Order: sequence, then structure tokens, then C-alpha cells
Amino acid sequence: MIIVMKNGSTSQDVEKIIEILKEHGLGANLSTGAQATIIGILGDKAKLGDLDLELMDGVEKCVPIMHSYKLASHEMCPDGRTVQVGDQIIGGKKLVMMAGPCAVENEDQINQAAIGVKAAGAAFLRGGAYKPRTSPYSFQGMEEEGLKIMRRAADGVGLKVVSEIVAHDQIETAAKYCDMFQIGARNMQNFRLLREVGRSKVPVLLKRGISSTIEEWLDAAEYIMSEGNYNVVLCERGIRTFETATRNTLDVSAVPVVKERSSLPIIIDPSHAAGKSKSIASLSLAGIAAGADGLIIEVHPNPKVALSDAAQQLTPEAYAALFQKVGMIAGAVGRSI
Amino acid sequence: MIIVMKNGSTSQDVEKIIEILKEHGLGANLSTGAQATIIGILGDKAKLGDLDLELMDGVEKCVPIMHSYKLASHEMCPDGRTVQVGDQIIGGKKLVMMAGPCAVENEDQINQAAIGVKAAGAAFLRGGAYKPRTSPYSFQGMEEEGLKIMRRAADGVGLKVVSEIVAHDQIETAAKYCDMFQIGARNMQNFRLLREVGRSKVPVLLKRGISSTIEEWLDAAEYIMSEGNYNVVLCERGIRTFETATRNTLDVSAVPVVKERSSLPIIIDPSHAAGKSKSIASLSLAGIAAGADGLIIEVHPNPKVALSDAAQQLTPEAYAALFQKVGMIAGAVGRSI
Amino acid sequence: MIIVMKNGSTSQDVEKIIEILKEHGLGANLSTGAQATIIGILGDKAKLGDLDLELMDGVEKCVPIMHSYKLASHEMCPDGRTVQVGDQIIGGKKLVMMAGPCAVENEDQINQAAIGVKAAGAAFLRGGAYKPRTSPYSFQGMEEEGLKIMRRAADGVGLKVVSEIVAHDQIETAAKYCDMFQIGARNMQNFRLLREVGRSKVPVLLKRGISSTIEEWLDAAEYIMSEGNYNVVLCERGIRTFETATRNTLDVSAVPVVKERSSLPIIIDPSHAAGKSKSIASLSLAGIAAGADGLIIEVHPNPKVALSDAAQQLTPEAYAALFQKVGMIAGAVGRSI
Amino acid sequence: MIIVMKNGSTSQDVEKIIEILKEHGLGANLSTGAQATIIGILGDKAKLGDLDLELMDGVEKCVPIMHSYKLASHEMCPDGRTVQVGDQIIGGKKLVMMAGPCAVENEDQINQAAIGVKAAGAAFLRGGAYKPRTSPYSFQGMEEEGLKIMRRAADGVGLKVVSEIVAHDQIETAAKYCDMFQIGARNMQNFRLLREVGRSKVPVLLKRGISSTIEEWLDAAEYIMSEGNYNVVLCERGIRTFETATRNTLDVSAVPVVKERSSLPIIIDPSHAAGKSKSIASLSLAGIAAGADGLIIEVHPNPKVALSDAAQQLTPEAYAALFQKVGMIAGAVGRSI
Repeated sequence: MIIVMKNGSTSQDVEKIIEILKEHGLGANLSTGAQATIIGILGDKAKLGDLDLELMDGVEKCVPIMHSYKLASHEMCPDGRTVQVGDQIIGGKKLVMMAGPCAVENEDQINQAAIGVKAAGAAFLRGGAYKPRTSPYSFQGMEEEGLKIMRRAADGVGLKVVSEIVAHDQIETAAKYCDMFQIGARNMQNFRLLREVGRSKVPVLLKRGISSTIEEWLDAAEYIMSEGNYNVVLCERGIRTFETATRNTLDVSAVPVVKERSSLPIIIDPSHAAGKSKSIASLSLAGIAAGADGLIIEVHPNPKVALSDAAQQLTPEAYAALFQKVGMIAGAVGRSI
Repeated sequence: MIIVMKNGSTSQDVEKIIEILKEHGLGANLSTGAQATIIGILGDKAKLGDLDLELMDGVEKCVPIMHSYKLASHEMCPDGRTVQVGDQIIGGKKLVMMAGPCAVENEDQINQAAIGVKAAGAAFLRGGAYKPRTSPYSFQGMEEEGLKIMRRAADGVGLKVVSEIVAHDQIETAAKYCDMFQIGARNMQNFRLLREVGRSKVPVLLKRGISSTIEEWLDAAEYIMSEGNYNVVLCERGIRTFETATRNTLDVSAVPVVKERSSLPIIIDPSHAAGKSKSIASLSLAGIAAGADGLIIEVHPNPKVALSDAAQQLTPEAYAALFQKVGMIAGAVGRSI
Repeated sequence: MIIVMKNGSTSQDVEKIIEILKEHGLGANLSTGAQATIIGILGDKAKLGDLDLELMDGVEKCVPIMHSYKLASHEMCPDGRTVQVGDQIIGGKKLVMMAGPCAVENEDQINQAAIGVKAAGAAFLRGGAYKPRTSPYSFQGMEEEGLKIMRRAADGVGLKVVSEIVAHDQIETAAKYCDMFQIGARNMQNFRLLREVGRSKVPVLLKRGISSTIEEWLDAAEYIMSEGNYNVVLCERGIRTFETATRNTLDVSAVPVVKERSSLPIIIDPSHAAGKSKSIASLSLAGIAAGADGLIIEVHPNPKVALSDAAQQLTPEAYAALFQKVGMIAGAVGRSI
Repeated sequence: MIIVMKNGSTSQDVEKIIEILKEHGLGANLSTGAQATIIGILGDKAKLGDLDLELMDGVEKCVPIMHSYKLASHEMCPDGRTVQVGDQIIGGKKLVMMAGPCAVENEDQINQAAIGVKAAGAAFLRGGAYKPRTSPYSFQGMEEEGLKIMRRAADGVGLKVVSEIVAHDQIETAAKYCDMFQIGARNMQNFRLLREVGRSKVPVLLKRGISSTIEEWLDAAEYIMSEGNYNVVLCERGIRTFETATRNTLDVSAVPVVKERSSLPIIIDPSHAAGKSKSIASLSLAGIAAGADGLIIEVHPNPKVALSDAAQQLTPEAYAALFQKVGMIAGAVGRSI
């Protein structure tokens, strides 16, 4: 960390800071320029604890130099990490394709979804059993019963299961049915949940919080990894901005930024960013072109609900058509599907 | 809900929608204008479940008319609710003043803090024992031990205790020491936690999520109230925007908007919005002038940490001075302190 | 427009509104449901002028149904518009590629840039002569002299010239040298400038304002088109969000949304969104995969300034390499380059 | 400016940067710590021109230490500037109160407005004659004729006139009628307009751009001041955020931040932030409590348009009532009205 002193700070101000650093077992590197005095901190900043040096007299600002995540960083694993889920490898040359309904509704629905997305070429079945809903009066999911029928549907056609958990006491139950846990956007900073899935060793799909910076996201991944679970896959799903034409703004730049700062695989969820509208295909192709390692897309087999191809939940047919296009882009960027 | 049909939608499109509504036990009110056809839904929209009518052919958009919260709404209690915590009433003519350190660090610190804020005039002692931290390597709080010494410090001078919990299995323990639970910004949509504090009946201070709309915030309050706990006080603490001069942007407009839409009391946390800087006093006065029912402010007794009056954590002296100014504004808007 | 009445509005409220509408030559379509009363306005809303019906007693909200742009809308030209600039057609099967330095600095620089980008395959030379700069103390551009040498450089190798103008009295001079005007993000709502370039008939590249919604952007295009100049090409260049890892957040969703709502071609500027960092290539490929009609990229020939391939301004070599990759993606989505 | 080198940068990287600095007449102060190497630039950073050192190999990031504005800075005038407009002083102990209709519509309307706001106690009459409108089909203002009748109305009751100009060639005409020019949010970075009003010496009310940082706003003020016109008053009018309950989010924190960083007076426009809703009074009081130097509020005399007290444009009666409340707050913070 660098401490930039105010224009007009006194030498006493500087001395007091250096003294404080010393008290905490840290050294100081003083640099006095024409425009500003700068103090570089020597040693491990963590020794400062909660002490906020910006509050000291004469300090203009403190500039962090190092990010706080280590295991999730690019430096720790410059060649990139892959995450293995059974026979599937996420983060390699082959893209991972996950698909299925928003929520598990009944046996028939999830079976048909499984058959449809398998036929199109997907490797993972998704479907929500524990649903985080904005209103307490909305459907909250089928819970364990939903996981049970999804597992059966997936096994029937040979798919892996990824599903969201929203509280740490669901881990034991959910682990019986899931190959991979999803941590949703609203729980990205539910640190208790992060720690506990870190202890579970089950692979984790960590969605970005709706207004989380990439740094905060990597810090969240670090929570899981710091407990010994390195099987973390990031998922960009759109951030909250002023634009109302889309539900969320897909931050496609997150793909190259994550690749530069971290070693973790990253996939794209175009469904939640697009909301309604015909944007899902465009965003899917954009994500893969930008370098993402896969896609997670909502697909629903029930024509009464998935009322048109423009829906947030694609029909299996629309998904199969999109799958082909994704393959073309994958080929153009040296990946396969 | 109103369904606005696209310019160019067909009568078949309209008929199909009316049919779907009927299947779900709902009526339709058709209005055909020169520019657009509009379908008003008659009956309880909840019958539609997860069905998203925006996905149907010919639909331009669906416009919700009713908000989803009921117990938290203004209509349900037009005169406004008050929340009683022991002998303290929040939401009445008298403002509620809460103050204390960011985190409980040790007995001496919390005792001095309690003495200081009591002397200034505060009614509640705040202090974090379970700390949600962005990085897993930061200090995570003293947990139950922290609550224990805070309770003792508060009792010593006659203050109520408000403290954050971050997981539902802390409720039982925390209830032994706290008069009021705080739900932090990161957990505003931790629905499991909301439901469980709803069942506990302990009064709740519900902070606004860093990028939550006011509607989402009231929906979160509804989660707590729908379990039977009506003792909810809202706390505006700044939202995430593009501006970097402040840590968060205090949305002072939230005060009149909440007063119009809801019956719940609302207080202001100027410390987290301001970050460093001398803004805390300004934001405190602005909040009360706008009609807020109180303030929660960080005060730290340790001069080694609270290094200057400009700090995010005020010294007890700075807090006492601010308290007097708040009293002046309170008087100007017909409140007392 | 639809007027949604408040729960609790009176029949007098409704009558008063219908009376006001009549006074302005408009009809009303009343729809009384169990939950809400809705008034549909019949006739041209423009007759209301500045009258804001949301201010009337009993009104919950007014919901616009129609957007305000007409010439720029998709309905007006469902097959999409193309913009012709000399022998170049923007918006057809072939992508348009524009490239060149941020600012025109001197004859040698712009000549080398022209040679470099032409060799890579670009069709347009870009370069700023009138620079809008945040600080008055920054370099403000070479103005007419810069345009003159850029025109000469472009003619030498057979490129079109696109350059920014920042005030309406630059149009006459700039038209002597430019094949296309650029309206920058900061001037997207400089309505006087929009009207005047509308009168000039010179093709216009209209960048999106840094915090403009897509609707406001299309309204800005409408300003130009309403004066008779239909030669408008939109350019997405990133929006302002809370994320700080990138200079701006490229809103790649804008591509499918614009294609759905408007008939105008849209290109992508990855350079301003990425800022520093290696993201330019990723964002370029993402934009084309999403369906954009071309790219405008900063390329600088001077190795002293364009210090590395990671720069916001690519070297001609890095640009040539990117050009090849863009061609691969173009092929995968049925376009050519 | 400080240059922070990457973990893993080489000594050649550092040497190359020092060499580049030397070529531009700048010195370097090298600081090598355990965690990072930092280069402090000695001399005037402006010598670097457009050179972006972040693009150089081995550079992690560049951290600006000094802001780019000088005349607008707090250091340049620590006691604060006042702006004199005739016999009115803005920025002193007495608050400045500006009020009037959104747009000048006709002689009767502006006369009644003038009489109403004068009676309430205002010192300035506001009213738009050149209107920047999102759609080309909306009313664009009465232009010079509007200014003429507003001047007459103001003179009739003894008010100053403040009105918006949107293009530099309106300055000469507008200066005949206005005591103060308003630069609107959309033109905050119309640098040509800023320079020209800087040359005019007419006092300027500079609104903050809808998504401008406070730093960019002060840079815009610097444009005007750098031409010799120091009579600049800032006006906070709400910023664009994700929240939709209000038209814009009033950034009340801007008041203390501007007071700390700048010497310029700052007033609050609650009308544009609030949009509809009953929030105007709350935001007015909040602004003054936070330390603002005055208010500019929309007041409309025509009961057919200003249909209720809840309107964005207050009736003269509602304004008079608000004026009294503002006076109470002013007294509580040591100001007068």
C-alpha cells in the first residue's frame, strides 16, 4: 500500500504515520517529490488489521497495490486451472454446456428437459430446487424432492447435475444429488455459505453478484478456495446498470479481465442478462467469442410455458439451433464443443 | 398487471393470451385503442405462478400495477408503524440515536464506547461481533464473546444493544445479548435469514442492499413481516454508483419515498456512505432534515485508531458535538432528540 | 400512453383527467378492474405538450406505450437501413472496419497509420482533430490542419475519412475533408449539433453517450434523421457502471436490442471500453459475434507511444493480427470482412 | 503521478520508463519495496501530453496524485469564493433562492410566476427559453421572445434572471436579458460552450452532468474559469443510478465533497431529482442541512398545469410554505434566507 500525503501535510504528520507503522511491525519507504510526499509501506499490510490510515492527519489517500486474493490469482497458477466434474473438464479446450429449466417443476418437465438438452449436446442439466425469490409470496422451489427427480432425469440420459443452494444447512442433502453446487448472485457475499461449500469439496459454480466488482467476485472465490476447495468456476450473468432495455447488462469484458487476473474458468449465463427479448443467442455467441469456457442457458420443454422462441427459457429446438451456432464460433476461436 | 400488445400483434395473439388467463382462473379486460391494444388482468396475478406473459407472441410488455409487498405497504398502516425496543419507540416524534464502534474489539474499547455515546445522548450501542468481510483473510469478529462484553457494557450505562447477525444459526445465541438484530447490506436478500429472524420476533434493523431498489428492500422487509415479526426498521446506508469521491452514494430521497410507500420507520447510516472524509456530519443533518427517524453512527473511543475527527469512526467528542447539531435540525422539523 | 390510477382514487379524479384529455383533443378508454382503474389515451399524445398527467390527483403512474422516435424505428424500415459512404456500404453483409490513431499528431504519424491500417484491410481512417478533453489544460487537437493532413494520408492509400466534430460551426470546414462525421459520446445530446449535421447530409457516426439509455440514443439519431439526413450509423463504446476494472463497460447487448428496435447499422468501439488491458481483441470478437456491422479501433504507428500490444492504441501489426481473427468470427456468423 | 510496477516487472521495464520520462523533461523517484516497485514522477505531468504510461510493459497502474483543476480547487481559495450577481451574493451566509417555471410559456404565465416567487421570498426568477429536449418532436422553447418576457416579468417585481443557453452563439442574445446563464446537465461537457461563457464574464450556474463525477464537474468549472470568468456556481441536480423510484438520485454528499475540494458555491435543484412525488420538500431541506448555498426550484402559477402540490412544479403557495421550512433549517445551521 502507498500512502499519498496531502499538499500541505506537515513533517509531523509524516512522522506520526511512520511511528504507527513501526508499532505494527511495518517499515516505511519515504519519497518526497515536488508535488507530493509518498510513503510506501514495507511488510505485510495485514498487520494493520482494521486500522484505516486514510483517517490520519495529512493523508490524501491510500492506494492498495496488491489485491487480497491469492489462491484465485493468476500469479498462483499462470497456466490456468481446470475444474473436473466426473468425466467433464471445465476450462480446457472443450467448452462446457449447461442447460435446463429455471425451476424444477415436476417429473415430466425435468425429464423432457433432460432429454432435450442432452439431444442438443449439453453435458450438464441445470434446474432450481431452492429458489431465492424477491417476494415471499412467490414459488420457493421443490427443495429435496426437486433435486431427487432432477438427479433421476439426468442419470437417465447421462448428464451431470448443477443446482443452486441458498443456505449452508442444505449442503449435506444437496450433495447427495448434485455434481456441482451453484451459488447465486444474491449469495455471492454470503460468506458463511462460501466457507461451508469450501469445506464440502463439491465443485462450485459461483455467479457474480448483481453489483459486485470483479475484485469482490475473486475475493468471494478466495473464501471457497481458502477452505481447500479449488473447484471453482465463475459465471458472469449481467450486472445492474441504468439501462432498462435489458434485465441486466452482460459484462462481456469480465471474460478477458478474469483471464488476466485469475486462473479460474469462467462461463456465461446469457439468460438472466437478456431477460425477455431475442438477445440470448447474440449474447451466447459474444461470450464464447470473448473467450469464455462455456455457457449455462435456460431451456424449458413445456410449450405452454416456453411460449415462443423469444422467451428467456428457450425451447429444446431453439437451444439445439443455438448449440450449432456456438459450435461455429468455438471453431473460429480455436475451441470445440 | 396490464399487458400491452405490440403494434402489429394479431387478434390470434390476443385470443391466445385471454385463453391462457382463463386456464389460470383469471379474467381479461380488453381495451383496443388507435395506437395499441391493452389487456388488463382481472383477478389475483399470483395465480400465474412463474408464467411470464412477456414471452408470448405479440406482447410488447407487461406492466405491474401492484407492488408485491402488503404488510410493509403504506396502505396497510397509513398512520405509520412504530417499533418498540424495551422503553424505546422508533418511528415516533423522538429520533432514535444509535452509536458505537464498527467492530467490538475488547472489553475496554466497548466499555469506553458505551460510556461515550451514552454521555452524548445515544439510546442504542452498536458494534459488530459477526463481521461480513470481503476477504477471508480479514478479521471476522469476536462472535459470542463480543456480544457478551457489549451487553455488559451497555447494561453498565443503560443502553440497548443492536448488532449484526450473518447466518440463521446465530439467532438463538445472539438473542441472548441483543435487543435488536441488524441485517447487513450483503444479507438483505439472504431470504433464509430473513425468514428466521421473522420467526424470532426480535426487532430487526434492515439495511438496504448496496444495489437494491427501494421496492426490493420493501420486499425484503415483507419476508420478515410475513413470518409475524412486524418490528422492522429500515436503514439507508448508501448505494453503489459510478461516483468514487464517496464510498457509497447516500440516497437521501429514499426517506420520502419510503414514507410514501411504506409504514415502516427509516433511519440513516451516514458512516458507511461517507467512508473517510468530513461528510458524516453533513449527511447526518441531511438525513434528519429529510424526515428520517434516527441515525446510526460509528463512534470509536480509542484515539490510536480514531486518529482524527475526520475519521469514519468519530471520537466520542466529535459525536457529542454532532449530537447537538442534530438536535437543532430535529427541532426545525418538529422532532426531538 | 396508459394512465394507471391509484388504489383509492375517486371517480372525480378520473373525470377530471378525462376532461383534461378532452380539452387537449384526446379521447379516453376507461378500464375498471378489481385492482385498478386504467385510462388509455386515444389520439396523439403530443397534443398534451408539456402537461405531466402524473401530477394529477389519483394518478399512480403513466406508462408510455410508444417510443418517441419514428424514422429511426424498426417498424419504419423492417429490412434495415444501409448507409453508403462513397463506395462503402455500412450495414450490409460485409463488415466495415475503421481504424487509426486517437488524435492526429503530425503528418508522419497519420501517414504511417494510414499505410498500416490499409495494409491490414481497413476501409476507413479515423483520427481526432477536434478533441473534447476533460481538462482545459490537455491537448485540444490540431483542428483544420489535422483534418487536412489526414485527408491527404487517406487519399494516398485509398481510405475514407471519419473524424469527430464538437461544434456546429465546424461542419462547413470539416465537410471539406471528411467522408463521415463522428459525434462523440459527450455530444450525443448536443441537440443543436445533431440538428446541424442533420442538415448537412454528411454521413454520421453517432456514439452512445456514456450513460445514455438505448432509447435516448435512438432519440438522438431521430434528431439527425428528422432534418433529412438518414445516413446515421450507431456506435456502442461502453457505458459508465460501478465496475472499475475496465474504463467503461461495453454493453454488447445493445447490438441485438438496437437490431430489434431500430433499422440503423451499429458498430462497436472496443478501444474506449477496454481502456488499457488486453481486452480489445476479446471485445472486438464479441461485438461481431453479437451481430455488429463493424468495428472502429484505435491504431497508432509510433512505437514510442504505442508502447506495447496491450495498449489502448494497437500497433499496426497487432491490428493486422486482430483483423484476421475478426474475419474468422465474421465467417462463423455469415458475414465477410 | 505514481507508477506502480507489476509483480514480475523487470529492471529493463523500469529503466525504459525512466528513459521515457527523461525524454519528456521529467525526473523519477524510484522506491523498491518488498511487494512492489514504485516510480514517482518529478515535474509537471502535463509534459507527457497524451502519452499513456499504463501501456508500457511492466506497469500495473498509474495513480494520479493531483487533480487537474487549479482555479476551481480549494487550495487556490481556502476561504471559499462568493459570486456576485448584481446586489445578490451567492456563497455567503444568506442562502440564494431561485424559482420559476420549467419553461417560459407566455407572458401571463411568467408574470404570475414572477409575482408568486417574489412574494414567497425568492431572489432569482428561473425559466427555460432554449430547451434541450430528448425528442426532436417536443417543444423546444420560446427562445429570444421567451427571454424578453421573462426579463420584463423579473424587472416588474425586482428579481434577477437565470436561464439556460445550449449553444455558444446564443450568448450575445441571452446576455441582453439574463443576469446569469445556466449550463444544463447535458452540456456540462460541451467544452466549446464552457469556453465561450468563460469569455463572456456573465455569472454561470453549472449543473452537474447526469453521470459526471465530481472531479469531472470541477474540471468543467475549470474550463470556464480558465477563460477568466470566476463567477461559477455549481448545481447538484441528481445523478443516474439503478434506482427507478426517483427520476434521478440526488447526491447530497456532493455538498460536503465540493466544499472540501473546491472553493465554489454549490446549490441544490431538488425538482429534477425528485421527478413527480412529494419528495421536493424533503430534498430541499436535506440540501440546506448538508451545507448547500441555496436552492433552485420549479414553480408554476397555472393551476391547469400545476395540478397538485405533489407536482414537480410547485404552486406558488406550496413554494411559499416550503420557503418557510427552508428558513427554519437555515437557522439551525447558522444561515439565513
